[in-house]
Amino acid sequence: MSRKLKVGIAGLGRMGARHAHHFHALTPRADLIAASSPDASELKWANANLDGVNTYLNFDEMLEKETGLEAVIIASATTVHAEQAIKAIRKGLHVLCEKPLSTNVEISQSVVDAYKDSRKKFPNQKVICGFSRRFDASYRDAHQKMKSGLIGRPAVFRSQTCDKLDPSGFFVEYAQFSGGIFVDCSIHDIDLALWFYGEDSIVKSVSAVGITAVSPELRKYNDRDNAVGIVEFYGGKIAYLFCSRMMAAGQEDSTEIIGTEGKLAVNTQPQSNLVNIYEASGIRREIPPHYYGRFRDAFITEANEFTACCLDNTEPPFRLEGAVSAVKIGCALQESLLSGNKINFDEVGRRIPKPQDGQLKAKL
Amino acid sequence: MSRKLKVGIAGLGRMGARHAHHFHALTPRADLIAASSPDASELKWANANLDGVNTYLNFDEMLEKETGLEAVIIASATTVHAEQAIKAIRKGLHVLCEKPLSTNVEISQSVVDAYKDSRKKFPNQKVICGFSRRFDASYRDAHQKMKSGLIGRPAVFRSQTCDKLDPSGFFVEYAQFSGGIFVDCSIHDIDLALWFYGEDSIVKSVSAVGITAVSPELRKYNDRDNAVGIVEFYGGKIAYLFCSRMMAAGQEDSTEIIGTEGKLAVNTQPQSNLVNIYEASGIRREIPPHYYGRFRDAFITEANEFTACCLDNTEPPFRLEGAVSAVKIGCALQESLLSGNKINFDEVGRRIPKPQDGQLKAKL
Amino acid sequence: MSRKLKVGIAGLGRMGARHAHHFHALTPRADLIAASSPDASELKWANANLDGVNTYLNFDEMLEKETGLEAVIIASATTVHAEQAIKAIRKGLHVLCEKPLSTNVEISQSVVDAYKDSRKKFPNQKVICGFSRRFDASYRDAHQKMKSGLIGRPAVFRSQTCDKLDPSGFFVEYAQFSGGIFVDCSIHDIDLALWFYGEDSIVKSVSAVGITAVSPELRKYNDRDNAVGIVEFYGGKIAYLFCSRMMAAGQEDSTEIIGTEGKLAVNTQPQSNLVNIYEASGIRREIPPHYYGRFRDAFITEANEFTACCLDNTEPPFRLEGAVSAVKIGCALQESLLSGNKINFDEVGRRIPKPQDGQLKAKL
Amino acid sequence: MSRKLKVGIAGLGRMGARHAHHFHALTPRADLIAASSPDASELKWANANLDGVNTYLNFDEMLEKETGLEAVIIASATTVHAEQAIKAIRKGLHVLCEKPLSTNVEISQSVVDAYKDSRKKFPNQKVICGFSRRFDASYRDAHQKMKSGLIGRPAVFRSQTCDKLDPSGFFVEYAQFSGGIFVDCSIHDIDLALWFYGEDSIVKSVSAVGITAVSPELRKYNDRDNAVGIVEFYGGKIAYLFCSRMMAAGQEDSTEIIGTEGKLAVNTQPQSNLVNIYEASGIRREIPPHYYGRFRDAFITEANEFTACCLDNTEPPFRLEGAVSAVKIGCALQESLLSGNKINFDEVGRRIPKPQDGQLKAKL
Repeated sequence: MSRKLKVGIAGLGRMGARHAHHFHALTPRADLIAASSPDASELKWANANLDGVNTYLNFDEMLEKETGLEAVIIASATTVHAEQAIKAIRKGLHVLCEKPLSTNVEISQSVVDAYKDSRKKFPNQKVICGFSRRFDASYRDAHQKMKSGLIGRPAVFRSQTCDKLDPSGFFVEYAQFSGGIFVDCSIHDIDLALWFYGEDSIVKSVSAVGITAVSPELRKYNDRDNAVGIVEFYGGKIAYLFCSRMMAAGQEDSTEIIGTEGKLAVNTQPQSNLVNIYEASGIRREIPPHYYGRFRDAFITEANEFTACCLDNTEPPFRLEGAVSAVKIGCALQESLLSGNKINFDEVGRRIPKPQDGQLKAKL
Repeated sequence: MSRKLKVGIAGLGRMGARHAHHFHALTPRADLIAASSPDASELKWANANLDGVNTYLNFDEMLEKETGLEAVIIASATTVHAEQAIKAIRKGLHVLCEKPLSTNVEISQSVVDAYKDSRKKFPNQKVICGFSRRFDASYRDAHQKMKSGLIGRPAVFRSQTCDKLDPSGFFVEYAQFSGGIFVDCSIHDIDLALWFYGEDSIVKSVSAVGITAVSPELRKYNDRDNAVGIVEFYGGKIAYLFCSRMMAAGQEDSTEIIGTEGKLAVNTQPQSNLVNIYEASGIRREIPPHYYGRFRDAFITEANEFTACCLDNTEPPFRLEGAVSAVKIGCALQESLLSGNKINFDEVGRRIPKPQDGQLKAKL
Repeated sequence: MSRKLKVGIAGLGRMGARHAHHFHALTPRADLIAASSPDASELKWANANLDGVNTYLNFDEMLEKETGLEAVIIASATTVHAEQAIKAIRKGLHVLCEKPLSTNVEISQSVVDAYKDSRKKFPNQKVICGFSRRFDASYRDAHQKMKSGLIGRPAVFRSQTCDKLDPSGFFVEYAQFSGGIFVDCSIHDIDLALWFYGEDSIVKSVSAVGITAVSPELRKYNDRDNAVGIVEFYGGKIAYLFCSRMMAAGQEDSTEIIGTEGKLAVNTQPQSNLVNIYEASGIRREIPPHYYGRFRDAFITEANEFTACCLDNTEPPFRLEGAVSAVKIGCALQESLLSGNKINFDEVGRRIPKPQDGQLKAKL
Repeated sequence: MSRKLKVGIAGLGRMGARHAHHFHALTPRADLIAASSPDASELKWANANLDGVNTYLNFDEMLEKETGLEAVIIASATTVHAEQAIKAIRKGLHVLCEKPLSTNVEISQSVVDAYKDSRKKFPNQKVICGFSRRFDASYRDAHQKMKSGLIGRPAVFRSQTCDKLDPSGFFVEYAQFSGGIFVDCSIHDIDLALWFYGEDSIVKSVSAVGITAVSPELRKYNDRDNAVGIVEFYGGKIAYLFCSRMMAAGQEDSTEIIGTEGKLAVNTQPQSNLVNIYEASGIRREIPPHYYGRFRDAFITEANEFTACCLDNTEPPFRLEGAVSAVKIGCALQESLLSGNKINFDEVGRRIPKPQDGQLKAKL
């Protein structure tokens, strides 16, 4: 039997548990051998469900003690993403880090810097940020079609990440640490924009507005439950974004790439499966309640491709640097949302000081 | 102002009143001048709603007394269609007769014979049977695309006429006179098959089965509430049909024309309008509750085109003879439904005894 | 026969000729009796196609000489809309004026002022601006569903008016007079936003960006071929808009109204009719090439309802004042597009002087 | 690590190779340890692609020599399905046999008989026939919804299996052994009908017609390229079927289950993924070219669930007996297609002579 990649996972929360399962059962070339979580109940779950996996209450201990560990999946709380990623990078491990690297631009950059530094020593090391949509079959088909020239030159990009309303109010507490709706939700759309427009695209301006239509308590954490934003790129390209926590029907993540000769639409007619229900009130179809219902296959592909690129020493599907650009744009949108100001950048990416430094704080 | 066609209408029931409105208000080149109905309350409605229209309790009286009458719309009970049509034909009037001419093949043929005879005297006379789908923009587009060669040679035809369940049981009583579900509903699909395959197509066999899923009392009138049938044509063409009185969501009339190089689908995703509703149970759209919701525009086009062909002495959109073929096929399907036998026809359209059991081996 | 409204039309260009046809042939309660156009060839067309209509090279002459004229449809060049409307208003005529009243806010307001003044003398006079989408069956259904509470409180509104690319470059020349893409195209979306949010909604800010992806020559007229904009309203409501002249497939006018408990989507899956084509490259449907293909029925409803409200002295379907609000927002978006600045308004609708007066001109 | 099921596969043709991959890489609880094929080039492929799998030119040898073999997947030519299945059954192995067990009813039954016999000795043995649609998420959702009462009592069932035209003529040669289009294609639809109506449903009659629209050479093998059939069940239930080798756009497998209170439609709007392409000819989506594109996930679920029921000694997802019923109905349809006769059955499933002509009157 061919060699398998020895993988450890950090964090076994909702998405962590899923990643663990993907690497444990659905990634034939990977062996999940270790899992760490500061939450004992999560480790209990791991012991019951992840055959043969060693569990650790402490991430550092896992790195230190787990013999033969080759790669780490970081699916812990966002606040420790960067720290854990950097530790693993410095040990020469391959790293798949959940998005975002950090809600802070500088910290995000520090991960990239650590990786750059580490590669001098470990030239085959792979570090990627888990932008799951890059692994989705529909987005890949759209990207390939765009590359083949089917829509001419892309010029307008519309994308939305809209969650089903969670009446439990979970996302309000979550907003304390999420970096805000643009950093938490739209980061995916921003990453897609950079993918479709080219990762070297330079932002010219961002502007955003937001409201609290259902959860006014979000304001205390400087967040909103619905927001729209415009990202203008140099070279005549526009992305406009919508993010929401208020959808009634389910998850509505959809994207349009509008080119000079055609348009590609991804998931503009959401659906759970291929069933339609004809009943007295009309014709109905269900849609996925959560992003995982929409992107499960993409996450599994992510696990398999990450594993393959580590084992085969091939190029990762995309570069880590983009993850910083996405956070940078997301943070700028969030700031614009809060300050009410449009933010402008020059062609080398430096902010043009329209708003006075003092203004944002005053407003907040 | 250019001359208008002087039109009378027979029958002011549900569909009769709609025809009256179409010719009165929505057919600029027509003047509805007279209306007859044996039902005094319907005439009262006409007096209130159809400005300037003379009303008659008696069809014959309308024909006799209404000065200047040029055309008659027959929208009365099916049982008197043929009789009224023949009377109007003999007076040299243009006639638009609702489908079917009759539920009986011979009586249907007698209308065609009367028209043939009458045209010797009135060469410009127009008589058509109101197959509304022939005037529908979508069916016309599909037909034009087929004619242009888009799908190669059509070979399989699927079509259904499915009514929303009417819990009032109206259609049970109606079944006494309707000729049965194949003659009443599928007649449209049969006419479409003849249109798409060519009106000179020769039927090779018909077979049908039916059930009473919701209205067992239909059996006393030799009818069913759901039925499927196959019509085989000489020359390697098949039509398969579904008719139902049991739809939950609304009217579902849809058609597929499958050719050697492509397929055209008409209304296989029914809808009332362009609205989609996103709500907790999913994404929903409403559909028309009745055939009129689906075909209103077609009826108005029918009124306008019938008027134009009378005024301009142009060819009617299709020939009256087809209306007899459609009834013939519909009656054969209904018979097959009831007898459980497949019915075969020779290449000149004569019914033949079924092939004996021994023939199978010879064929193989 | 009941009385008909005597109607004259100003302008017989592309849309003018359609309006003329609607009132001449498809509005049973209207009599089109007069038409004016400065273009002799258009009058020639009218003489050939509009039976019994008197034609005039001069609008003023039509108003003066046409006996019995009761209503005027203004479908002339946008630059003379307001002037002609005011003249007709002052004569006490009913007026249906194509959108926009003017590309200038003050001039638009002058039409409203003239109407207010005139109603003292002619209390039954009706003046409306032709926002065709208000008459569209799907938008009406959506509006009625929103009113009934189906989606809770509307909070985010997305709407786009996107024209098929016209390679003739017609719209470049047209841009000289159109007021810009936000005033010409998005005016419909803005009007819809005001309809769904309430016509008394107060704009808090607008911001917009635009590009010339296919027609750089538009820049000389201060226009763009693609633009997106955000309109923020007081009270926690957002509208975000996209307008384009670059669509490949055809007209794509679609709208989403997102409420606290659901979403209504109008025409987010455009189609010409109910036909789907299955062929080697997949499943395809055609879409309308122009707005008229999408909104023909709405224009006819507009003609009939305008006629009815004049004849019956009932309330017009919506108030004229909204037409000024829409132009005001459209102009602000166009200015933001050009200046790169976000524009803010206070709660009584006054502009908060963020950008210095001199800045816009300098940029232009 | 928990125990894995040791699996061998027979046949490595197109579908065999896919099954091998599913059990080798995508079924975590299975170990594919052996593969047999009479085709040396297929074994070469196995040696290159299926790490650690022993290969055999001879099925019997694999059964004999492969130590620890617990289960066999039979994906060889249909003609040897039954023989190989019976051999494996007699050795006490679990068996997943591709559909159909045989194109012959008696031979199909002999597999069931062998299993019944074998279970006396091996009570935990699992044998299933690979009806992949039973594992498809959409069909399962529809079935669960029907079971929950969402559509009342199912009464009409429409289903089609339609392949993309393969211009290579492959399927003509294949027709020699396939059992005919109803046995090869519609077998899936028949199995679905039995699933949705209940596996104990008794057929009352079948009738079918077919044509050779694109491949007249199929006639020499008593086959057709397009056929429609009706299956009538006792108790007022109808299934009507369409099978074709002529689709232009791709695989079109779709199903409707029509109940007394609603309808469930599965894949009536086929699609490859969630991408729509807007281009000059309209809006287009691609569809899967082959059944594997549509059902890949179902095949993987099949592999995993078969493995689980063997390891955990749980009930298989459905009983083997249904596979004989499906072949029986498929063969009857194929016979009706060829003979032109309707075939009737009594309530215990025995074929009965056709009703004499005189019976009709009596029935009416």
